[in-house]
Amino acid sequence: MQTFNVQGMSCGHCVKAITQAVQAKDPTADVQVDLGAKTVRVQSSLAADAVLAAIQKEGYEVSPA
Amino acid sequence: MQTFNVQGMSCGHCVKAITQAVQAKDPTADVQVDLGAKTVRVQSSLAADAVLAAIQKEGYEVSPA
Repeated sequence: MQTFNVQGMSCGHCVKAITQAVQAKDPTADVQVDLGAKTVRVQSSLAADAVLAAIQKEGYEVSPA
Repeated sequence: MQTFNVQGMSCGHCVKAITQAVQAKDPTADVQVDLGAKTVRVQSSLAADAVLAAIQKEGYEVSPA
C-alpha cells in the first residue's frame, strides 16, 4: 500500500476523478481517498511515480506521504 | 436570468457537473457558477423548477435566490 498527500481534493467528484485516473493505469488498483486527511492510499502494481503522475495530471498537488 | 443558491459546490468538477446537468436539458443554456457566492445563474428557456431539479439530481441543495 502506497500513501500520498494530496492537496485540493474537496468532494465526491474529486474522489471519482482520482480513482479513475489511477485505475486507468491499473484497472485492479484499490484506491482509497480520504478527503479529511487529504490522503490517497493505493494498492496496485504501479510504481509510486506512475501514481503521482496520474494524480498530478488531474490537477492536484501530490507528494509521497 | 434565474439565480439559485446552491450548497455543497466546492471545485471545478462541481462547476462542470452542474453546467452539464442544466445543458442536458437545454443545450443553449448559459450557466454561470460562482463557487464563492454559492450561486448558479442560468439564462435559458427552462422553467425554474426544471433547473432546480437538474441541480438537485446532481446531489446539491438548491433553492431559488
